[in-house]
Parts: sequence; C-alpha cells; structure tokens
Amino acid sequence: MSTSPAPLRTAVVGAGMMGADHVSRITKRISGAEVVAVVDPDTARAQAAAALAPGSQTFASFEEALAGVELDAVIIATPGFLHEPVILPALEKGLAILSEKPLSDTVESSLRIIEAEQKLDRPHIQVGFMRRFDAGYQQLRQLVESGEQGALLALHCAHRNPSTPPNYSESALITDSVIHEIDIVPFIVGEPIVSVEVKKPRRNSLAPEGLPEPQFVLLETASGTLAIVEINVNIQFGYQVTTDAVFESGVASIGRAETIQVAAAGQIGQSVTPSFKERFGAAYDVEIQRWVDAAHRGEIDGPSAWDGYLASVVADAGVLAQQSGRREPVTYALEKPAFYGGATAGTGAAASLATA
Amino acid sequence: MSTSPAPLRTAVVGAGMMGADHVSRITKRISGAEVVAVVDPDTARAQAAAALAPGSQTFASFEEALAGVELDAVIIATPGFLHEPVILPALEKGLAILSEKPLSDTVESSLRIIEAEQKLDRPHIQVGFMRRFDAGYQQLRQLVESGEQGALLALHCAHRNPSTPPNYSESALITDSVIHEIDIVPFIVGEPIVSVEVKKPRRNSLAPEGLPEPQFVLLETASGTLAIVEINVNIQFGYQVTTDAVFESGVASIGRAETIQVAAAGQIGQSVTPSFKERFGAAYDVEIQRWVDAAHRGEIDGPSAWDGYLASVVADAGVLAQQSGRREPVTYALEKPAFYGGATAGTGAAASLATA
Amino acid sequence: MSTSPAPLRTAVVGAGMMGADHVSRITKRISGAEVVAVVDPDTARAQAAAALAPGSQTFASFEEALAGVELDAVIIATPGFLHEPVILPALEKGLAILSEKPLSDTVESSLRIIEAEQKLDRPHIQVGFMRRFDAGYQQLRQLVESGEQGALLALHCAHRNPSTPPNYSESALITDSVIHEIDIVPFIVGEPIVSVEVKKPRRNSLAPEGLPEPQFVLLETASGTLAIVEINVNIQFGYQVTTDAVFESGVASIGRAETIQVAAAGQIGQSVTPSFKERFGAAYDVEIQRWVDAAHRGEIDGPSAWDGYLASVVADAGVLAQQSGRREPVTYALEKPAFYGGATAGTGAAASLATA
Amino acid sequence: MSTSPAPLRTAVVGAGMMGADHVSRITKRISGAEVVAVVDPDTARAQAAAALAPGSQTFASFEEALAGVELDAVIIATPGFLHEPVILPALEKGLAILSEKPLSDTVESSLRIIEAEQKLDRPHIQVGFMRRFDAGYQQLRQLVESGEQGALLALHCAHRNPSTPPNYSESALITDSVIHEIDIVPFIVGEPIVSVEVKKPRRNSLAPEGLPEPQFVLLETASGTLAIVEINVNIQFGYQVTTDAVFESGVASIGRAETIQVAAAGQIGQSVTPSFKERFGAAYDVEIQRWVDAAHRGEIDGPSAWDGYLASVVADAGVLAQQSGRREPVTYALEKPAFYGGATAGTGAAASLATA
Repeated sequence: MSTSPAPLRTAVVGAGMMGADHVSRITKRISGAEVVAVVDPDTARAQAAAALAPGSQTFASFEEALAGVELDAVIIATPGFLHEPVILPALEKGLAILSEKPLSDTVESSLRIIEAEQKLDRPHIQVGFMRRFDAGYQQLRQLVESGEQGALLALHCAHRNPSTPPNYSESALITDSVIHEIDIVPFIVGEPIVSVEVKKPRRNSLAPEGLPEPQFVLLETASGTLAIVEINVNIQFGYQVTTDAVFESGVASIGRAETIQVAAAGQIGQSVTPSFKERFGAAYDVEIQRWVDAAHRGEIDGPSAWDGYLASVVADAGVLAQQSGRREPVTYALEKPAFYGGATAGTGAAASLATA
Repeated sequence: MSTSPAPLRTAVVGAGMMGADHVSRITKRISGAEVVAVVDPDTARAQAAAALAPGSQTFASFEEALAGVELDAVIIATPGFLHEPVILPALEKGLAILSEKPLSDTVESSLRIIEAEQKLDRPHIQVGFMRRFDAGYQQLRQLVESGEQGALLALHCAHRNPSTPPNYSESALITDSVIHEIDIVPFIVGEPIVSVEVKKPRRNSLAPEGLPEPQFVLLETASGTLAIVEINVNIQFGYQVTTDAVFESGVASIGRAETIQVAAAGQIGQSVTPSFKERFGAAYDVEIQRWVDAAHRGEIDGPSAWDGYLASVVADAGVLAQQSGRREPVTYALEKPAFYGGATAGTGAAASLATA
Repeated sequence: MSTSPAPLRTAVVGAGMMGADHVSRITKRISGAEVVAVVDPDTARAQAAAALAPGSQTFASFEEALAGVELDAVIIATPGFLHEPVILPALEKGLAILSEKPLSDTVESSLRIIEAEQKLDRPHIQVGFMRRFDAGYQQLRQLVESGEQGALLALHCAHRNPSTPPNYSESALITDSVIHEIDIVPFIVGEPIVSVEVKKPRRNSLAPEGLPEPQFVLLETASGTLAIVEINVNIQFGYQVTTDAVFESGVASIGRAETIQVAAAGQIGQSVTPSFKERFGAAYDVEIQRWVDAAHRGEIDGPSAWDGYLASVVADAGVLAQQSGRREPVTYALEKPAFYGGATAGTGAAASLATA
Repeated sequence: MSTSPAPLRTAVVGAGMMGADHVSRITKRISGAEVVAVVDPDTARAQAAAALAPGSQTFASFEEALAGVELDAVIIATPGFLHEPVILPALEKGLAILSEKPLSDTVESSLRIIEAEQKLDRPHIQVGFMRRFDAGYQQLRQLVESGEQGALLALHCAHRNPSTPPNYSESALITDSVIHEIDIVPFIVGEPIVSVEVKKPRRNSLAPEGLPEPQFVLLETASGTLAIVEINVNIQFGYQVTTDAVFESGVASIGRAETIQVAAAGQIGQSVTPSFKERFGAAYDVEIQRWVDAAHRGEIDGPSAWDGYLASVVADAGVLAQQSGRREPVTYALEKPAFYGGATAGTGAAASLATA
C-alpha cells in the first residue's frame, strides 16, 4: 500500500575503516538507501563489511559488481589513486556517486573526471567533504553571510590528530589532512584560494622519523582573507579541529570541547574526541542522508566534482610550497563551467566561488 | 535482489507539533520504517502531517486506521488521557508501540495498560522518555556505573523553558515537565524514587497569572540520593536543561551551552537552544531508530510501560506534595513483574530498579 | 617631606594559618598599615608569624599587647569563642577592629558586642566576610540591583571543600562553613533571611565517621527568594564555591573554574583551586586594604557588627534545623539601630537590610 | 616603635593615563612606597595626578624634581623617546627605576642606557612588561619548564584592541603593541627571537584610513618555536589577549574570557574586558609591588634593561619586515653581559636567554 520510493541500491567500493563505516551507516541510520554490493579485492575484508548489511553481496572489483547486481549509486572509499577507475564507468552507467575526498590523486585525473561528467545531463558526483555538514561550520558560514560582524579577515584553524598511520608522508599533510581545510576555507569565505605558503616550526619529536611536522599552511583567498592552518598529526592527546574566525568587529570560535564536564582530582575537565569518527560522525550521517535524498530527486546536494578539482589544484600548490618555502600562487586552468553553476546551491557558499 | 527487511508500516496518532515531527523524522532520517497512516480528528492537521510522508493516508480515528491499512507499529503523540484507547487495541493487534510520555494520565490507567500488556508474550510498549538517548545523560549514567568518583550523593537539575502554552496548570509542572526528571533520575541513580517534596520560592511575575512558579521538586531515591529539580517554565531566555551530579569525590555537569561561540560588542556568547526540539533533536532520532531496529527483532529498546507506571506513581505524589507542602512518600502498588525483567536491558540502569 | 598618613599600627590576634596570612598580607601587600604586635599564647607560633613582619613584637595575650605597644587597630583571627574578650577592650580603646567571621560564637555574645559598640560615636567593628569583596559576588549584586533580568527568585549555591580538619562537627557545617552563605545571601538579595531548613542526602563515606554530610541548607529571604546551599566538605577534588542565580528572565553564574586550560591525554582541563586561600586571596587583599583605608578616615567599609549579629541568629536557627528536620523561622531580637544605618554603605546591599 | 623600612620616595614622570594610574596604584594599593613627586610639563595634568597622592608635589621637569625633593625611585610613563633623558640622570643618582615599555625608542638609545647602567654596581632598571606578572603567563611558563607536555613547538597569540588612539601608525603595531609579545614570547619559550616576518591579510575597513591591519607577525625563536601573533587593534568588541600554546603532546590556552556568566535573551555570555587596565590590572599591581620590595633589598625583580634592549632589536626587525614582506633575521650586537646574568632570576625564563 505504501508508495515510498524504492531504496537506492548502493555499492560501497573499498571495505577499509571508512568503507565499512559507510556500510554500517547506510544500513542502520540512513533512510532511502541500502547496500547491495561491497567491493574489495581483499575478500575477507569485503565479507566482514558485507556482514553489516544483510542481503548484500561481495565482489573483488567494481566491474564484477556492475555485471553482477543492479546498482543506482556508488560510494567510493578507496585511496585517491583508485577513484578514477571507478568514477568513469559509474558515470557511464549514470549512477549517483559519492567519492570520498580527494576526488582523485592528481589534477590531471580530476580534469578527466569533470570532463567525463560534463557529457551527462547534470552533475552526478558529490565529493565527501563532510565538514560542510557539521553544525559548527554551517553556523560559521551563516555568520559570514549575515555580515553581522563585518567582513571576515582571517581564520585560525587547528587540525590535530593523536598519531599518524604507517607510511604517512610529508605531502600527505597537505593531500590527506589539510585537504579538508582546502575545501572548507573557500566554503566559509565564499571565494577561492589564490596562494599557499608553508611554515615549519620546531619538529615534534613524537612524530615518525623524517616527518617534519607540525606545519603551518597559510591559505589566502581572492579578497585577501588569510587562513592560518596548524596541521599537527602526532599530538597524542586526541583529535581536535577548531576554528577561530576573525571578523571586522568580532571573533567566532567553533570546535572547542563539548561533552560532559567532570571535576575530579584538582581538575575540571572535558573529554576530547579520540578520532574523526566521534568528532564528525553526525556530519557524515547528515552528508550521506542528504546525498541519498538528492539522488532520489536526480540531484547532488553537497560539494561537486568541480569543488574536488579546485581542492586538487590547491593541494598541488601546497605540496610545492612545502618544498620551496615560498608563497606559491594558485592558478586554475579553467573557468567554472555553467554545468556546475547550480550544483552546489544546497550548501550556499560554493555557489559563489569564481576562479581567480 | 535485496533481502533487507520490509520497512515497519507505522501509524502516527496525533498530528500536532510532536506527531508531525515524528512523521518527518521517520520519513527523512529513520531507516527501516515508513509512515503509512496519520491519525487525527482534525482533518487539516492530519493532511498537513501526512504531506510529509509520501504515500501515507489520513484517518480520523485509530479504529479507522486499523481497518483501512496494514500496520506493524504505532507512535502515539496525543495528550496523555487519550493514550489508553489507542494502546489497548494496538496491544491486541500485537503492534510495536511507542507512546510519548506520559504512559497515561492516571496511575489506574497505567495499571490497566501493564496488565493488558502482560497477556502478550513480551513487552510491546516503549515510552518516549527521550533523555535516556541523549549523549550527556548516557555519559552521566556511565560515570555512576563506573564508580570512578564514588557514590552519587545528590543532583542539581535545572529544567527551564522560555514560556508556557495556554492552559498550563500548576500540576502540569509535575505531570508534563518534571515527569522527565522523574524518569531520568532513577535512570541515572539506578534505583527508584521514594519521596517527593515541593518548595515554592518567590513567584516569577512573568508567569501567567495564578501559576506559582518556579518550584523546586526534591526527589529522594531509595539509598538517599537527593535530586533537587528547579522547574522554571517562563524564564524567557531560552530552553535549558542542565544537571550537576555530586559524587563522593567529584562533580559532573551536563547540558551547559555548546554551540558556536561569538565575541561581539563586549561579550563572548553562545546561543541557547530555543526549544526542546533543538536541545534533544538528536536524542529523538536515536530513540526512534533504536525502537525501529528493536521492533524488527521483536523487542523494545528503551523505557518500558513499567517505567511509565513508576513515573505516574511519582507524579501523583508530586502533585500531592505541591498541595501539602510536605515530604510525600512514594509507594508502588506492585513488585516489578518478571515480565519486565529484561525489557529495559538496553538502557542499563532501569534494569536494576526495584520497588521500595 | 612627605605628608602621607602614618601607617595604622596593627595587632594581629591569633597566629594560626589565617592570622599568619594576615601578618604577611599587611606587611607585603597592604598600603597604610603595619603589624606591630602578634598575639598568641603559643609563643613559637607567635614568633613564626612575627618573623613575617620586621619590627613587630610578640605577646602572649591581648592585654599584654595593649600594655606594651601603641595600637591603632586589631585583626582578630582566633576561634569565635575568643572574640569577645578581645573586642570589648579594643572597643574601649577605640581601635579599628577587623574580626574574622563569626563575630562571636553565640547570639548572646554578639548582642553584648553590638551593645558595647553603640556606646561609641560610630561603628568600629568590621566582620571578615571576605566574599563581599570578591569580583564575582559584586557583579552578581550589581546585576540584582540593576533589575536587568527581573527579580531574583532563587540561588543555587555550592560550597565544597576537599576535606575537613580534625574535630569538625555537624554544627560546624553551619557555623563555620555555611556562615559565609548566611552573610552573602542577604548581601546579594538585599533583604534578611527569614527561615532555615536542612535536608540530608546520602552520606559521603569519605567524610569522618559520624559527620552526616553533604547537607542542603535552604535559606529563605523576606520576599521568598530561596537559596539552596550545598555544603559539602569532604569532596576531595578541590575547593569550589559556585553560585547560579535564577532571575525572572535569565540566569547568572559565578565561580566556575577559570585558569589556564590544558588539553592533554584525552582531556581538556582546568585546575581547581585547592583551598580558600587561592580562591579568595584577592578578595582578602581588597577587604583588608579597604578596611585600612576606611580606618584612616574613621569609618568601616564592609559588613558591620550588626551583620555579624544577623548571621549568628541565622546560624542558631540553622543548627536547630539540622536537629529538627523542619523549616525553622528566624526571628531577630532587635530592630536595626540607627547607629548601624550608614555603616555598611560601602558595600551597597547590606544598607537596605531590615529585620523581618 | 615600629622599625619597618621607610617608604620608597617615588617620582612618577608622565602624568597621562598610565602615569596617573601608577600614582593611584602606589598610593592606594602598594605597600612600601609613596609618591612624592609628579612630573609633567602639562601643569594641569600633573596636578590632577598629584591630587591622588596626598603630600606629593608637582614639577615641570625631572631635573626640577631631582632638585626639589629627596627621591629613592622613579617610574617613567612618558612616550619612549623621552625615556633616556630621565633614565640617565636617574642612574647617576642611583635611583630604583621602573621604565614603562619600551626601554627607549631606538636600539642606539637602548645601547647607551645599558652602557650607562653597567657603570653602577648592579642593575637598577626594570622594564614594565607587566604580562610577566599575569597569572596565566606564569602558569604557561611553568608548564614549559616542567616539560610535562614535551617541548613547546608553536604559539598562537591574539592581541586585540577595540580601537586605536589618534596618530597610531603602522609601525606602532610593532613598537607599541606587538612589543608585549616580543618580550613575552622569549619569556615563555626560554630563548631569544631570531627572525620576524609579517603577513597582511584583508584590511579591516573599521581601522583608520591608511592603517593596514590586522597583521600577523611570525616570531621564530632559536630552536624553531614559531609564534604567530595576530595584532588586531580596531576590532570593536573589546580588549582580548589570548595564547594557545602547542606542545608535543598537548595544548594550553590562556586569556579566554572569565567573569560572571549570564544567560539572557537566547544567549549565554561573558563580558570581555574593555581595556588593558581591566585585563592586566592585577598584573600591574604585582609588578609594582615586587619592584618596590626588590628596591628595598637593592635589587630588581623583573625584566631588566637588557630585556628592553633585546625587545628593541626585535621591534626594529619587525618594522623592517612590515616593509620588506620577507623573513628578517634578528641579530643582536652584543653578547649578554655578566652584569645582567642574575638580574632577571626572579622571573625565571629570561635568565637563560642567550644571543643567537
């Protein structure tokens, strides 16, 4: 008797921590989608994730999944260099696509992706910059838009992790970690990044040998707003992402600790979230639910492949700036196509992004 | 191809603010359920709520809904005196039942409900005390269970609303508002309330004429833990629910404001939530999702009808205490039936509740 | 060539922790006074304190000090039952007197003191309720006076100590500890206390055997404002004194922890002050400096002996309430004499105190 | 009979806001000193300040004061370019000297001053960097010294004023405002600054025409610790000085707002101090009292002229960096003389400062 739409038949590609988390999320908390395929060449890992979604099947490759099961949508949670080989055939099939960040691992690959997408009638790819769905960032963006405190002049961003996984390299500071600020700063400010510079203070002796961190990444936007990003990924005490935004007549802060407060043993303390999963879990839920709802309407509702391309250009400049020690300008190869004009309307800020 | 279970076909009875909110919640954010019927004698209100759930139908009474559509579950969001006439036939049909607080409006009615429920094979009714699903209260309960700070000796609870709806009476302070603390205090402490006393300080001149508030309601549990509840429902500035828990060697606080912090015009400020919907929205989502998931397993996962009965006995004593000015003992007519022994295991504390 | 007034020649009576602290304070931080005599029957203790004030002498009794050195002022830091024997001869000599709280140990003794004082031309006694000089309490009093948030309806006061000294008795909860709230509540509200009631929750097993604490002391003022005081003196974690003041349209809080904030090991924490000396050190400095300055002008500038008398009457009722379990009315034997009318003008609120 | 030492006969040179504040401070709150002379060519201003110190005299020049009254000490609160003409004769007389920051307006003048001072037997000059006496900075320094959180890697400093006085220039951002961080950063880190760089984000349109601010000043110390100082002097909302210190395993924050907290009208807010007088008033009191106490012992107890010289060298490099847009190295002309070796022992960190 019910006429509610059939759930989005979804493949999750990549069954690591993030992919398994998405399988669980869609199965337990998201309305309007179901996981029908889990793709991973590591069979054991694929089966472990699929066990979270009753009725789902496992496949060793995305091609096999396409051949073996009817799909409406795909979530890509593999390392960045494996995104393009999934995105291109998914675009050909017209699937709704949620690509975890980054869109791809090189600017060239990002360009190929947005070129392929523009052969379709409308944007199909949403990039998984989940911070745009966090209540704090949204309130901050609203404060900028309101103009209540005047123009936004500067941002202090701190991005702190307790420790890094094995094989985490200096460039990963930019491409894996600061990539979130590279996306969210233009979202907050409402204009693109035009230069990147990197400062390296005293090294943390608790970081893996050879990793020169923390670093300060200075992101400048078109009108001169300066974001100073502390990237600090072996600070032990917890996962903490904070922003202090400096306006002409005031300051706004988000992300400082907020849970139960306990006074004990000479201290009043609050817990710090141990990882990004606790800190941004609610943002992931909102992101995925809005992506599913938009897919049912034939839309995306979040950062587009164009935003993914912009981020990859800035990340490239950032890696260069790590090496040069200089302020590196950011130059975008393309004007924003009309195709992407309305794609990000749902998140507000990005709609007004123009190339420098 | 998917074998995920069919969604729970759910009727929402009562299409006021709370009922419409549940229709929207189930349709947009909850996985595994769909609203197929909206019941309200006010046709316009029913249709407005049903418009939020594509494919749902409207009915003027629960009987008509039972006759006209296949149901697996019902959410009851009417005033308390209208709960029993929905619950009893729903029990006969074996539906999963989520009754908003209170379970019913009188102790007698509550007793009839738990008597009827016990004719079934297992508990079917969950009562909508959503605070049990709030992260702060859960952390506080865990801290009590851990014993880290010693025994819990006292609680300062503040329950503040900006203003009251028309016709809100003195007894509603207990039965509509403090009812939440009447449920959550035993949940936190892990034992039942054994006495109630009410203190009336200077009246708020901004309260409706004739309403003597704020009041302080002193709830004493079996081992002597004292909860002092400030109920204060015309305090203008916002909706605020806080708890300071006093242990033998420390103090824990929850509910103090936590959103974006803005420094402007000589002040550093944080917004206060304007109503319970913003403050406890996430708790409602968790509550309903867990109820849906449990219904698929043939269980409940939250406060049971027995907990609803306990609350109604304490509320009765509270209304008496408002009038007498004395400490009123709380006496439960029944020992906890074995039938309810495992019903609330999911929420921990209530499982250990015993009558005084 | 300078004509600045000669320093106030001051005796400090009682060379325990508090007395020695005053010797150090006057010598190091206070302008316009010097310690010339330290009085204590325990010679070693007297000499240790006198060593902090170059040029001071030690005496075994106040009589000997009066005979042996020229005095302008006396600070009394002995136990309460020893105050009257110092105050009466000091009044005869016309000295400026700062009596640590309480003014005396019994209502009768307090009455004798205010009787003796009224034979002089003006008040000479100031009572050491230092909280009146704390920035937080002063801001709270100003908020009450401003009327910005409407009338003050209720106060939640927490008074927490890490542990108690030997021989601390149940009545000391009132006479040594809550005595501070007994003074500061009328200061904040601007009217006298008219009843006292005591509630005893579950006992802290870390308190000395036989001491039934924490307790909740309910202080009601003339217009019905209700202060609920948690007195809790073996809570281990630190010294904490907080007040949440409930107005008709808002809430104000003072005393929550405020020092360096450290994020470490999964926690963001602030230190709690270990004792009253750290928490109220600045208030003591202000109190003593204002008392010295006023003495040079022939005035007092803080709570008077009349305020000390009022506190002793309330404390008597509080001790009775501990035993009776009932709400005990507070009845003052006297109308406030004109003699005390202007004495406390400097601190604002107390000026408007009238007997019930 | 008392043998306490005679008060320090003190001249205050400069009767503007800061000078008058010192006159009042010494007269009302400081023990062991008295103001006997107020020096200002503006007679009305001198007399207004002198009225705060009974028995003090006014003079149009420091020479006239030296001729007309016996002096033990001098406090200099004139603009920096007028310091040397007071300091040199004061050194000749062997007075205790408290020079407000900066020590002088040029590096050359600072060098002449430390040369002259070294002809005496011991340091006589203390420079008025009051932040070293603020509880927060002291706690932060202690945390660095303890090593509890590992090495200090970076500092985020925000220095915000509501608005600037007339004629405030771009270089004043460094020489008048950041000069405080230029002193306190080496105090916290325990080593000297070795480079300065300036970044200019989008200009605040509320700043006076032609003043390009806010600016970010990057101060690098010998081991690579990087302090990023936001100097922001027309931000309207209040005076706010905060520091977030990034250690190897944690973060410490000082200076975030801490006074009465009021919930009203949809907000929970705390006042921000309107000016440096409220923010650092207690630090000034401690600074002057410790300077007076040390003078009685024939010592100084705070930053020395050498510290003043170091700051002037860094400030010079900072002004150059504002113009060049480059990282400017800081080179000190001298090794630290043995003469200054013990001078700053009282404040700990500065004692270990060595030239680069």
